[in-house]
Amino acid sequence: MLVNGHPGEHVDAIDRGVAYGHGLFETFLVINGVPIFYAEHLNRLLSGCERLGIPTQGLAEQLRHDLQLLSFPEGYSVLKLILTCGSGGRGYLTPNPASPTRIFMLSAMPVYPDQPHQGIRVRWCQTRLACQPLLSGIKHLNRLEQVLARNEWQDPSVREGLVCDSRGYVIEGTMSNLCFIRGNRLYTPALDQCGVEGIVRNQVLILAESSGLGVEIGHYRPQDVEAADEVFVCNSLIGIWPVIELGGRSYAWGRYTRQLQAAFNQRMVQC
Amino acid sequence: MLVNGHPGEHVDAIDRGVAYGHGLFETFLVINGVPIFYAEHLNRLLSGCERLGIPTQGLAEQLRHDLQLLSFPEGYSVLKLILTCGSGGRGYLTPNPASPTRIFMLSAMPVYPDQPHQGIRVRWCQTRLACQPLLSGIKHLNRLEQVLARNEWQDPSVREGLVCDSRGYVIEGTMSNLCFIRGNRLYTPALDQCGVEGIVRNQVLILAESSGLGVEIGHYRPQDVEAADEVFVCNSLIGIWPVIELGGRSYAWGRYTRQLQAAFNQRMVQC
Repeated sequence: MLVNGHPGEHVDAIDRGVAYGHGLFETFLVINGVPIFYAEHLNRLLSGCERLGIPTQGLAEQLRHDLQLLSFPEGYSVLKLILTCGSGGRGYLTPNPASPTRIFMLSAMPVYPDQPHQGIRVRWCQTRLACQPLLSGIKHLNRLEQVLARNEWQDPSVREGLVCDSRGYVIEGTMSNLCFIRGNRLYTPALDQCGVEGIVRNQVLILAESSGLGVEIGHYRPQDVEAADEVFVCNSLIGIWPVIELGGRSYAWGRYTRQLQAAFNQRMVQC
Repeated sequence: MLVNGHPGEHVDAIDRGVAYGHGLFETFLVINGVPIFYAEHLNRLLSGCERLGIPTQGLAEQLRHDLQLLSFPEGYSVLKLILTCGSGGRGYLTPNPASPTRIFMLSAMPVYPDQPHQGIRVRWCQTRLACQPLLSGIKHLNRLEQVLARNEWQDPSVREGLVCDSRGYVIEGTMSNLCFIRGNRLYTPALDQCGVEGIVRNQVLILAESSGLGVEIGHYRPQDVEAADEVFVCNSLIGIWPVIELGGRSYAWGRYTRQLQAAFNQRMVQC
């Protein structure tokens, strides 16, 4: 673990990340020491910083320097970056200048003995996401809604839960984005009011065309998802996981999802 | 500063307070070593714990023990308590058992040379609070909306900003609750969708009756506040601050506000 470029496992108790969740995070899949889709993660981080008033001058260079200090294992590993606005300020007012805190945490890739790449069980959550366009899309540290949603179930055989917003539109999983396919179109929820704009989601949207899929980003109800031919969730760590059971209904690990998984894996190793 | 009952200034970087804002805080005014309205703060903290799935067994005793380790100065000081869900868990899922982190931070009482108890300037914020009944009322660590609202202005002569929710109803200040008086009624916004249920706000509601004021908790627009005879904001640190300027309009430091300030000060020293 690295804190501001030095080995360490602690942050100041007065850090604005602790006090207010004033910060962002990124979770990188690392293959043989290479953080996959690094540029895309960095772009999302920087755009999050702009939204939250966290200065970015010199940040990209500092992060790159931090990365060189880490000893990555061979094969797959997981790298989490937390970037906070640092310490200080009078209450909620951001100090000027602010001195952000960078935390890199390297850990082993989780082992999934149940072959989730071939299909997972998913449930609907009761927790609703609030509509807050000022915070939508970015991966900020205010994640209580996800904590509440994820704690709705304990059954480890249920791999993910889908969450709607307060209007009743499906938004995402607790830790993943949602896509579904009907006919030859791929649908994924609009994220202008809540939700995180996932790196893999954006890759999927790019890859959909080459799989012969039209793409529609919009507002969908649970019944729209349930009426789909294929459903999957995705994030940087898991890639694409087909949903084979949702709310008591069964779905195929279908043709388009397989094509997208193959195309995505291809793209990933080209990174 | 005390972390889990030991002198310290750091928390684990993997604490759920840092990662998700999975925790709560309380800010106590301390007079001659006595945290004012301690029972009320503790009650709010415990009810927040219940909402966020943070275990409370033995917590009240631990906090009381922590307090005995602190060296309070004479006169006024400020004690902030952050309680997080601690470290661990697979992603958003809370570990079982969870081991909460307690952070006590004692600091000097801020000095206000501009006599804000006689009246402050206040502005309207553009930032809207999202409606999220699962998190309303409690003082959780997901405070990005407050950070965004407070950073809308830099002018130190403006002491507070008022924030509406996404429906356009006035909710509170960035760091305080809002009350206003028209005729012989005291009005304060309902906090069922967002906002923090302040300790001083609740005391004011109790004290209003003895000041000959009827009380109404409801949904109000900015124009309702602007049409008030008297306006004030309140929190545990500042007590009651009359608003004498809001959005270009002037207000009196009026009779009812003075009465409530006097009654509140009386009640405070009886604590």
